Formats: sequence, structure tokens, C-alpha cells
Amino acid sequence: MEIFEQMESVVRGYIRSFPTLFTQARDHRLWNHEGRVFQDFFAGAGALNYGHNNPTLKQHLIDYLNQDGIGHALDMGTAAKAHFLRTFRDRILHPRGMDYKVQFTGPTGTNAVEAALKLARKVTGRQTVVAFTNAFHGMTLGSLALTGNSEKRNGAGVPLDHVLRLPFENHGPFDGLAYLASLLADPSSGVSLPAAVIIETIQAEGGVNVASEAWLQQLQALCRQHDILLLIDDIQVGCGRTGSFFSFESAGIQPDMIMLSKSISGFGLPMALLLIQPQHDIWRPGEHNGTFRGNNWAFVTAAAALETYWADDHFSRAVQAKSETLRTALQGLVDTHPDLLHDVRGKGLILGLRFKEAAHAGQAAAALFERGYVIETAGPHDEVLKFLPPLVIENAVLEAVVRDLDPILHHLKRAAPALV
Amino acid sequence: MEIFEQMESVVRGYIRSFPTLFTQARDHRLWNHEGRVFQDFFAGAGALNYGHNNPTLKQHLIDYLNQDGIGHALDMGTAAKAHFLRTFRDRILHPRGMDYKVQFTGPTGTNAVEAALKLARKVTGRQTVVAFTNAFHGMTLGSLALTGNSEKRNGAGVPLDHVLRLPFENHGPFDGLAYLASLLADPSSGVSLPAAVIIETIQAEGGVNVASEAWLQQLQALCRQHDILLLIDDIQVGCGRTGSFFSFESAGIQPDMIMLSKSISGFGLPMALLLIQPQHDIWRPGEHNGTFRGNNWAFVTAAAALETYWADDHFSRAVQAKSETLRTALQGLVDTHPDLLHDVRGKGLILGLRFKEAAHAGQAAAALFERGYVIETAGPHDEVLKFLPPLVIENAVLEAVVRDLDPILHHLKRAAPALV
Amino acid sequence: MEIFEQMESVVRGYIRSFPTLFTQARDHRLWNHEGRVFQDFFAGAGALNYGHNNPTLKQHLIDYLNQDGIGHALDMGTAAKAHFLRTFRDRILHPRGMDYKVQFTGPTGTNAVEAALKLARKVTGRQTVVAFTNAFHGMTLGSLALTGNSEKRNGAGVPLDHVLRLPFENHGPFDGLAYLASLLADPSSGVSLPAAVIIETIQAEGGVNVASEAWLQQLQALCRQHDILLLIDDIQVGCGRTGSFFSFESAGIQPDMIMLSKSISGFGLPMALLLIQPQHDIWRPGEHNGTFRGNNWAFVTAAAALETYWADDHFSRAVQAKSETLRTALQGLVDTHPDLLHDVRGKGLILGLRFKEAAHAGQAAAALFERGYVIETAGPHDEVLKFLPPLVIENAVLEAVVRDLDPILHHLKRAAPALV
Amino acid sequence: MEIFEQMESVVRGYIRSFPTLFTQARDHRLWNHEGRVFQDFFAGAGALNYGHNNPTLKQHLIDYLNQDGIGHALDMGTAAKAHFLRTFRDRILHPRGMDYKVQFTGPTGTNAVEAALKLARKVTGRQTVVAFTNAFHGMTLGSLALTGNSEKRNGAGVPLDHVLRLPFENHGPFDGLAYLASLLADPSSGVSLPAAVIIETIQAEGGVNVASEAWLQQLQALCRQHDILLLIDDIQVGCGRTGSFFSFESAGIQPDMIMLSKSISGFGLPMALLLIQPQHDIWRPGEHNGTFRGNNWAFVTAAAALETYWADDHFSRAVQAKSETLRTALQGLVDTHPDLLHDVRGKGLILGLRFKEAAHAGQAAAALFERGYVIETAGPHDEVLKFLPPLVIENAVLEAVVRDLDPILHHLKRAAPALV
Repeated sequence: MEIFEQMESVVRGYIRSFPTLFTQARDHRLWNHEGRVFQDFFAGAGALNYGHNNPTLKQHLIDYLNQDGIGHALDMGTAAKAHFLRTFRDRILHPRGMDYKVQFTGPTGTNAVEAALKLARKVTGRQTVVAFTNAFHGMTLGSLALTGNSEKRNGAGVPLDHVLRLPFENHGPFDGLAYLASLLADPSSGVSLPAAVIIETIQAEGGVNVASEAWLQQLQALCRQHDILLLIDDIQVGCGRTGSFFSFESAGIQPDMIMLSKSISGFGLPMALLLIQPQHDIWRPGEHNGTFRGNNWAFVTAAAALETYWADDHFSRAVQAKSETLRTALQGLVDTHPDLLHDVRGKGLILGLRFKEAAHAGQAAAALFERGYVIETAGPHDEVLKFLPPLVIENAVLEAVVRDLDPILHHLKRAAPALV
Repeated sequence: MEIFEQMESVVRGYIRSFPTLFTQARDHRLWNHEGRVFQDFFAGAGALNYGHNNPTLKQHLIDYLNQDGIGHALDMGTAAKAHFLRTFRDRILHPRGMDYKVQFTGPTGTNAVEAALKLARKVTGRQTVVAFTNAFHGMTLGSLALTGNSEKRNGAGVPLDHVLRLPFENHGPFDGLAYLASLLADPSSGVSLPAAVIIETIQAEGGVNVASEAWLQQLQALCRQHDILLLIDDIQVGCGRTGSFFSFESAGIQPDMIMLSKSISGFGLPMALLLIQPQHDIWRPGEHNGTFRGNNWAFVTAAAALETYWADDHFSRAVQAKSETLRTALQGLVDTHPDLLHDVRGKGLILGLRFKEAAHAGQAAAALFERGYVIETAGPHDEVLKFLPPLVIENAVLEAVVRDLDPILHHLKRAAPALV
Repeated sequence: MEIFEQMESVVRGYIRSFPTLFTQARDHRLWNHEGRVFQDFFAGAGALNYGHNNPTLKQHLIDYLNQDGIGHALDMGTAAKAHFLRTFRDRILHPRGMDYKVQFTGPTGTNAVEAALKLARKVTGRQTVVAFTNAFHGMTLGSLALTGNSEKRNGAGVPLDHVLRLPFENHGPFDGLAYLASLLADPSSGVSLPAAVIIETIQAEGGVNVASEAWLQQLQALCRQHDILLLIDDIQVGCGRTGSFFSFESAGIQPDMIMLSKSISGFGLPMALLLIQPQHDIWRPGEHNGTFRGNNWAFVTAAAALETYWADDHFSRAVQAKSETLRTALQGLVDTHPDLLHDVRGKGLILGLRFKEAAHAGQAAAALFERGYVIETAGPHDEVLKFLPPLVIENAVLEAVVRDLDPILHHLKRAAPALV
Repeated sequence: MEIFEQMESVVRGYIRSFPTLFTQARDHRLWNHEGRVFQDFFAGAGALNYGHNNPTLKQHLIDYLNQDGIGHALDMGTAAKAHFLRTFRDRILHPRGMDYKVQFTGPTGTNAVEAALKLARKVTGRQTVVAFTNAFHGMTLGSLALTGNSEKRNGAGVPLDHVLRLPFENHGPFDGLAYLASLLADPSSGVSLPAAVIIETIQAEGGVNVASEAWLQQLQALCRQHDILLLIDDIQVGCGRTGSFFSFESAGIQPDMIMLSKSISGFGLPMALLLIQPQHDIWRPGEHNGTFRGNNWAFVTAAAALETYWADDHFSRAVQAKSETLRTALQGLVDTHPDLLHDVRGKGLILGLRFKEAAHAGQAAAALFERGYVIETAGPHDEVLKFLPPLVIENAVLEAVVRDLDPILHHLKRAAPALV
């Protein structure tokens, strides 16, 4: 481990939360160099919905490598990309009655967000974009301006402009949508008509805050009324995380653009997409580009993931069932420890346990790591223990983590006075 | 091919220059779906210095996959990353007497640039960054502000601030460094002390403009005198492109930060690094992050590439020899067609043939594609035919492209009047 | 009048609302070139609280001119300025227990606002300033960013940055102060700690919106809690307009800075002040300057005005009595015309009659002009008829305007269907 | 004097350079409270071209006051304004073949500059404005972004954007106009097409730097070629300062907009104008406004000044003759003290004596103050002693100041070693 201390920048983070040397991983399990196994409730920050080294996807990848399939190809035409596009159309878009053009951006979520910002500003000729309290959209300058976290924002070193911040649903007693409506109705409000609203339907980093279907519908209606584009950042909670492929399906909304990344390749390979309603696809060729936007290995595993998991609704229903299992178990903890725990929050397999004392969440995560779980906290004060397992996790593991958490909570309770 | 027309955003670019369906690739060759072979003078925009599906690197990758090596791991500690860090230290940094901390940013060049901008602003407490005419540093908002191309800049849809633009060496008759010095000496110049200067030692997109060693040394001296950080964007011309691992080795300068991406993984897998002089490594943990910053498959091939090609100077000398071969052949074309061609420019295996009539360069590239070459143009008016082959290309192919270009030039000359 | 059409920019405004050629003015009366008299309910947009050509002040000015008193002196030391400072201290600050340093900025309100912005940013080292919906703070770039009116904002032609917009009291159902508190309490709110809050206690251009004393106290408490500076723009409603010299006296708050202009010279001569709590007076000499910041003729009339009207509370009580007279009469109109009129709003001698149909307010103003009154509208939709007479106006005129307005309202009511 | 210490902000400046209490002033003389006379080589920073309390202008002002002429009238139509417009047209514009619309902005130079910036951006739909090294255009945020002085710029506390800085003529060895031309010709230069260029033909604060006629013509040609507006800031060197009414008359250029302030009222009363070529006068009514834009007392003295001094060329020729007298005398000093003095610079009655050692200029100014002269320094290092007398000054005083300066220079020379 000294090599990291010696050679890697102090910016490194997760190695501090999970201080061990990982070597192998499979499905929902990781192993360290001593052969110790860890159960994964982190899923590569949402990039491993189908698990580590998913065997089916891995086989497709190795086969492609063995036949010297073209790997790095920018936005040249390739057979692997054509196959992905057809599969995405047939397995995802068409069955949902969705009509979108696909832009392959640089293979990171923030790159898809930056592309969406540019296009929304170009389409509307406006500059301001609405973002919400506790939002997380990435670390490059355009995305960072949308992000809420003050530590990350301060890193910019320059002002972060062209963003109108509104309260997310249930952020305090304020009705952010009514406020936006009142600003737009008043020509002297000092707020100009925005180009777009960008939103995560569930704020993951923000503390597992779920926007209700009604609120999302109301937001879309307000956007339509004022000709504002609605952009859904489904980077963390898309690709099946909530039980459906897109997180917003149950709300019945039709975003103008959708950002996907993290689990879209299925295998953890870098890949990102921007889905664009056809009337907004007014780019000039090459106006936004990027060296790694043609990661064909990722296209191969992405297509295989869609074929494997999204040809019918088995996978989707399994996720919902597991969600129910985990939620019920977590709710049991809340009932048992009402003095420590606020509530269970989330949807599908992104569930949060909100602590009343922020420090307890971090202590619980650390204690779970000692017991062989990889799990992290979220929320403005890191007060939420975030359960984000690979979707292929087994019920037994879901039950085990809750069983192991119970004595930790008991211990925290006893230790509480000492902490003060 | 219709699937691209139907489903992919109009932003797609290279498929227009190279209108065929590629399926496989190996070393410096690509094949389309009909089995036709193309010789590669593009190298994935510089990401494939060791060729497509490099057999040695591929074997390392397949082995790692087969043993379920951990793939996607953010900045957790992994054996693959530790191995890469040791190899990078032992094969690259130590032999060159270089002492740098390594930051693994999101796996795209623009992400490394954005990280460097943040850190330079944090270290100095200043905001302005000097960038040069015809620079290219990426497409996200911070990097785009540094980039020169007006089409790409207009895509931002918001002002691009906090950048002082200076003429690159030999951009017109202006001595940009003397100008900068005069601005800094005058407290009423209206220009504040910059945080940093960012520069590509060879502007690739900008038209294969080479900064001389003397000019780079003078730039470093000016930076040191005013406590301005010197950032080298070696994303396209590092990793051996110019014959040495870093492009600036012969100039003997010690940049404060260095950005690497494109060919650093060796295999075309997305990966990017920011090298930081230790005294500047003042990040707080997690202050800049990114989901795909731990692409361990890339670390595996990256370490293998360093072991294979940089354990001694054979590879380096081979690149220089090939450069000589290609440059001599291209110079022959200039001598034969002085009415069409300006000069040969570049270094190592990034060489440019500058046309007097910009349109001719594009016509030559298109004609070469018909003859089985993948090659593109560069420069503010796309007036430069850019030869950027995989470094493992064979001399015979270097000679063949020049041989095939000659009749094209003859044809252009004859056609010229008709073009007017 | 053709000379204006021929030579003056189309930007001219009031000449369109009051289309006649004015030649003379005295107290609350203006005369046009045909000798027709107009009663003034506009008071030079608040710059003529003591009336046009106030005889006492005029005599001081003529005496000073006759003795060749120094007129234009920048910020040199002059006897006239010393006299003003002593008078301002003895008649205004000391009796109110206020301790402020006085900065003589360029002689316009917007210049005082720009100075306050600079100083607040310098004192705190922060950039964002909170401004309110419907605010008006001036037309230069810094002040314009604070201003709400979208037509005026669009004139900037560049983004207006570094401002956080909050709803003014009673602007919609949203509690702006609670919202600000929640943003500041949440480190991931995406809103950084502001340098300052700037507010008009009564928004004049914004539609005669009055902030309550309780709300101002709550605002000050929130500012103090977070070390945010509180800046009061008393340019239009200071200098006795509300009955007390400063508009906020009854709220018992102590702003960090106060901007005065418009009626501070007493005579309509350009003059502006920034009052600064001593601990914030950290300017370097000359850091903010301006050619006309030493308008000594204005200092002469300003001191005379303070001596004449603020040596005791007669003037103040007279304003309050006149306010009561006008308010009662206006309320009578509201009671008589509930279908046309919303309410009477305002304080002291800035009173607004809010119409239910915005167009009616403008029609009433135009009809009053035909009957010999100079009066204008305000509010986001110009829906408020704004009564802003010189404070020296006589009760008879206050009653006359209401008497003359009544038949106009009757006429508007009858005409209403035809208007649709 | 203690009242200033006690009550006035530390931002005060000139009272430190000229530490006495002034009471009266007439023509080119000021008196302090002890009756001591000072000769004026400062002219209210250029606002008193016709001298203090000019008797002719003063009589017009007193007459107007005595007849209760309307004083403060915003942009209502008034007889005084109509008279000024006719006089300005007949005495200034028409004789010079100039066709401009007149905008009465807020009565300070910076306000006219801010209006020009807005209008130039509106006319062109672009944002960037070119400004020059050592420029001074004012202290409000838009103007400050154009200003060069770093101390003043730092006062902003926020980034100063949307400006492209170029070297003024003879600022270093760099040809700014050729550089601008090369940037505009290169679509990858990273510099977008500016909306406008703003320039002082003689930089007064910047150190009395004179742009040559040829350079101004070349600048206009470049602007016309690229459809960039040319804005002349004639605030300090217009109104006869250089011998002609506008400073650029001898260059034969036709700016798109011209800013006037300082001496336009003739009497030192605040007033400012923006002159606009008719095709650019596309404001909407009231789009830029300001409370004191209708200072009718200033219009009265302004018209009187034009009638008195610009009905024929006597005044103009007198200024040129005085200039010759002063320049010859100053050149004699340079010839006598080549070790101390660089050169004489300037035109008309703005002449600068540039010292080799910056500190000497300040010492000379202080020594002259002790001998009864009001004079200040300019230039990036305050290395230029700036002679800016009222234009009505007598030859004897011009000769006297040079005579009195000679022994001071001798003394500085002898003292020099001691200063080190």
C-alpha cells in the first residue's frame, strides 16, 4: 500500500474509506490480496449494476478481443456500434415508445452532461440552466456549476455561472416549482428564461432524495409551458437501478434529453450516451467531440447486457422484489432504533438509511467494512448510509447486511454519550 | 450504415470522412465489413501509438479478465494500480530524474485538463490561464475556454472566461513571450498575473505547429520569474509520439504539471493522468473525482506497454528512424510540388504536409481514403495533411503512402484551374 | 419639440409620457413654454423632495456662486465639504446614534451602489450579492446585475453574474428569508455564502412594495448570523420620503452600508453618498474614484437642506400628516372602485394605487397629465399609479389629484368593455 | 481639516496630494482658507477647460436660477435642453460635417461608457470589447473591465470579463493592430469577433500616451473591415483640450460612438453625452436611464460655452499657441536635465514630462504644490508629470511653472544619491 502514499496524489479518496488492496471481483463480491471476501453495496458508484466481471458480458468481450474486433474508433462507423444502436433501439427505446437520437459523448457522465448543456443552450439561444439543491452532475466546469456540494464547487477556483438554483422536492418547506413559476411570470423578477432544467429523479450523492412522480410531471408541465428543455440525468439511477430501465418511466414523462453513463456498458467500461429528442438534434458535425467516444469494447458489453437483461421483464421484476426485501429489513431497523434512525428512503436498489446524528452513518459504514461490506454514505452531511448493491445481488446478502448492521446500531447507541 | 443515419446524432464526424463500416483492426491496419484493408495514418487520434489490438497488450488484458481481476474500482487500492504506479515510476519517471505525484482523473484528456486548471488556480489563488492561438485542450467548459477553434468555442453557448490568449511561436510576426513579459511588467496593462500557462509543445489539431526548444525554455523562464505554473498538455504528443516518452524531454524543461491520456493505456482503453510536482499536490481528498478514474483494465495494458516499449531505448530510436524516413519522403513531395505544398512540419511520427490551397489538403485526404488510407487534415483552415500513424508502423507503409500521394498531387495540380 | 426627434437618441423616455416643453419650475409646480402649470407627483423620480428651485436652497447656491466658491473639486478638501460633513454628522447621524464614515462617490445612485458592491466584496472576500425580485439599483453593469427588470437587464448584452435572487417580502407564497437560511445551512445547496444582501426597504420602481419592519429585522438577524453585510439602498426612499430621514429608522436596524443620492443635495444637483460602518472602511486611497465626486455646489445646498428641514421634527411630522391625508383619499377611491383597484400601498409620501388591469394605470396617468398632473406608473406590469410628490406639496393639491382622478376611474370603468 | 479624518472614508485621495482647505476658485486660480493662491495645472481632472467659475458661464447659470428655470428634469423635454441640442448641432456637429444622435446619459463619464458598451453589444449581437493597455474608462463594473490599472481592477472583487486587451501604440515592440488582424483572420485563434474597440486618442491617466493619426486611421480601417464598432472615449481630451473640439479631428476618422463628459458642461457641473451614428441608435425607450440625466443647469452652461468659445476658431488657435509655449519650455527642461527626464509628450494642453525615475515625478509635483501649483502625476508607475491647465490659462503662468520647476529638478538631481 505504500506505493499509493508515495506516488498517488493526495486527492485519492475511496482508498481511505476502504483501506485494503483489492485484487479480484465477481458479481457482488470483491477479494483483497489476502483472499478476504467483501460484499459489495457500492457497485462501483453505480457503474456495476450487473456485477463485477459479469460472466456473460465478459465472454462477449473476450470473444471480441480474440477476433481483433476494432476497439478504439472515435465516431467512425463500426459493426459493434451498429449492433449496439439496433439493440438499444429494439430493446429499450421502441418497447417504451421513445424516439431519441443517440450521441456518443466522451465516456464519462460529466461529458454527457456538458454535451447536453451545450445543446440545450444552442437549441434555445439561452444561457441559464436550472439545477437543484444537493444535485450532483460532475466535476468538469460546466457540470460543476450544476453540482451543489460546496467543497467540490470551491475546487473550481473561478465563479460558477449561468445556473439558477432551486430547492429539490422536500428540501425545506419550499415549493420550488411554484417559486420558479412565479419568477417566470414576473418580468421584473431578475431571472431570465432558462434554457433547461436538469434533474436527477433520485439524488444519489445528495442523500437518496426521491422526486415524486407528481412533482416530476408538474416540472415537465412547467417546462413545456415556458418552452424550457427538461434534461434528466439518469447516469446513476438509470439502467435498471430503480427497477425500470429509466428511472422516470413510472412518472410517464418525456424528457428532451437523457444522460446515461455508469452502467450503460454493463461491464464497468467507460461509456456515456446523450439521448436527444430528434427535433433538438441540431449539432454541426464534430461540434462536440472526444477521443474515447468510440469505445467499441463497451459497445459490445452494452449490447450484450441489453440482450441478457432487458429482452423481457424478468430482471426488472427481480430488482423490484429485492428492493422490497431490503426495504422491509431496513424499515425493521428504523422501527427498532427510532432514536438513531430517521427513515428509509429511495427506490429500487438505491436505498438510504438516514441517521439522526450524521457521524453515526460514517461510523456504521466503517464498522460494516470491518465486517466485510463495501458501503458508503451520502447526503449533505454524510448522514445517509447508502445501499447501492449490484442488481444481481442475492437476497441472502441483502438480509445479511441488515442482520450485521443491527448490533452495530446497538453499539452506536451505547457509545453515543461518549461521543458527545 | 443506415442505422447511423437513423439513430445516431448528426454530431457524428469521422464516419463522414471515412464512410465505411469497420469491423476489425490489428497494429496499423483496419478492415471493413467487406474485408478491405486500410492503412492507418490516424492512430485513433493519437490513442493507438502501439497499434490496434497490440498482441502483447491484448494478452495481458485477456489474462486479467480470465482471472476476474478487479476492473472498475474508482480510486480504491488495487493490485493492478499499484503495479502501474511502480512501473510508471521505474520505467518513466526515475530514469528521467522526474519527481511527480500521479492523479488518476476521469479517463479522458479533457478531464485531466480540467483537474489541472482547478489545481493551478487553487495553488496560486489566481484565475487567469494563458492559452495559445490554435490550441486544443478539450470540449468540457473549462478546457473549451482554452481551445482556439471558433466552431468548437461557439458550441459553448456561454462566454468562455478566465483565459488570456497569446500567439503561439511563429503565429504571425509576434513574439508572444515578449508581449506577455511586457504585460506583466506594467501594472496598468489590464492583465492580471495568470495562475498558469498551458501549452501543447506540438499543436496537433492546430496544424502540427512545433514549439522550438529555445522558445519552451524561454517560456519556462518567464513562468518561473513570475511564479506562474507551467502546464504541458502532452495528451496527443506524449507517450512516444515525438520519439521520446514526453514531448518536451529534449527541451530540458520541468513542467509543474503534465497531462497524459490517449496512448497512456497503450491499448486504446480510456485512461488519463495528471502528473503534479509534489509541492503542488494540495488537493483535499475527493476534491476532484469521477466514476471511471479507476479503469484497472487500462492500468494492466498501460503497465504492459511501459514494460514492453520503454525498458530501453530501442523503441524510441525506431520511432526516430521512421520519422526520418517519412519526413524525407514528404520533403521529396514538397520539392516536386512547390506550387501545391508549403512545407513539412512536425517531429517524430506527427508530421504535417501543409498545402498552399486549404481545399487541396482535404481532397488529398479523401483521395488517399479511396486508395486505402485513413488520414485526416488539421490546421485552422484544414490546410495540413496530418500523418499520425501508430508508432509500430512499418517503413514500407510509410513509403507507400507517399508514393500513392504523388499522383494525387499531380491530379490536384491539373484540376486546380477547374476548382477556381 | 422637433429638435428632440431630430437630435436626441430614441432612448429618451419621459418626454413620451409628458409630451410638452417645460421651461420653469418652483416647489411642486412646473410650467411649460405656453405658461401652463403642472402639479408634480413625480418629484424628479425622487430627487426633488424639497421641491423645484426651493427658494432657501437656491439662495444659498446663488450666494456661493457669487462669491466664487470652489465648485468642482473632486476629493480635495474644501470648506463647503467640511461644512456638509459637520452638518450631516450633527443633524442626521448623531441624533440617531449612528456612526458611519462618508464616501463621496460619483454623483449618481448607481455609482454609490457600485462602490458598495466593491467594498462589500473586498471586506468579505466573497463575490455573490443577494438581491430581490423587482429590485432597482441602477443601470451600470454591477448595479444592473442586481436590478430585476428584464428589459433593462437584456440591455446589458453580457451575462449578469454574481447575484443570488430572492423573493421580496410577499412576492408570491414563498418565504425568501427562510429559503436563504435553508440554503446557507446546507453545504450542498449549491449556493455559496454571499458577501452582502442589498435591499430597498420600499421598492419604488418595483411597484411600491413595502418591506415590513419585522421582515427587515429578521433579514438583519440572518445577515448577522452568517456574517453577511446588509446594504440598504435608500436612494429613492431616504431623505425624508417616508417621514423619517432614513426609511428604515422605525425598523431599528443598523445597516453595514447605506446608499443615498437623488434628494441628498436637496436641490436636484447630482450627488451621491455611501455611508460605511467604520470597521468596513478599508478602501485604499483612490481605489474607487470619479471626476464629479466633489460637486461642491451640491454640498452647499445639501447642508442648507439639512439645516432647514432636519434641525427638528417639524418637517418629518408634516410629511406624515400629508401622507395620512393622501392615503385616506386614495383609500376612498379603492372603496369606491373595488372592481378597478386592488389597494393603496406605500409609506410616507410614496404611495401607490394598484390597478387590477395594468393598462388602466397607464391610462389614468395619461388622463391626469391632460388635467395638469405629472405622475407615472411603476410595478412589473406598470400596474401601479405612483404618487411621489415633493414633500413640500400642499394638502390642497393632494386632495385635488384624488378628486380629479375619480371621474377618470369612472370613465375607465365604462370604457373597459370597449378596451377588450 | 480634522472633519475629513473623522468623517470621510479613507478612500479620499486628492486631499492627500493637495493637503489644504480650498474655499474659492476663479479661472486658473484656487484659493485656500488662508487666502493663499494656487495656479491650476489640474483643471478638475479635465472638467474645467474654461476655468473655475468662468464669469460668462456663471452669469448664464445665475440668470437661469433667478428665473426659476427648470433644473432637474430627467429626459423630459425642456427649453434648456432644446437650446443645447441646437447649439451643439450648429456649433459643433454641422461645421465638422458630423451626423450623430445625442444620448444624455447619467452625468458621469463612466455612465456614458457603460451606455456605449450596452449599445455596441446590442447593435452587433457580440460581447467582447477591445481595450488597450493603460486605458482608463471609469470605475463602474462595465467600464472598470476596460480600465488597465491593476489596483483599480482589483477593487472589483469579481472577474472582469468580455474584454480583449491589446497593446496601445508604442506599448512595447508589439504591433497591436497587426496582432488583432491576425487573430481575426484565424478561425482557431481563440478570439471571437469583438463588438467594438474603445480607445482614448490620448491616454491621460495612462501617462499622456498619444496615438498617432496614422495609427488611428489604421485602427478605423481594421474596424470597418471586420464590422467592429469604433468607440472614442473623448471624455478627458475632448472639448478643446487638444486644440480642436474633438481630439480626433486631425486624424479624419468617423467613430461609431463618441463619449463626452468632464468639460462638456463648461462649468464643472456633472454632465455626460454619448454621440451615436444614427444607424446605431436602436435603443428602446428607457432601455438605459438615470436620475440625473437631465441636469438642465449644465445644459445652460454647456450651450453658453459652445457659443462663447466655439463660434469661430479663435479659442482653438489660442490653445494651440499656448501648447506651443508650454511644450517649448518643457522641452528646454528636457534638454537641460537629460539625466532626469525622458521626453515631453502630449498634444494641445495635455502635456507630460516623463521622468526616468518614477519617484522623481511625484517629488516634483509635491515641490510644485509647495510653490503654489496644483499638478499631478500619471502613467503606470506615476512617472509622468501631467500639465493639464484650464485652457484659459495665461502664457505667463505657463512660463512660470517651468521656471519654478527648474530649480526643483536641480535639487532632485543633487538629492538623487541620497534617495537610493
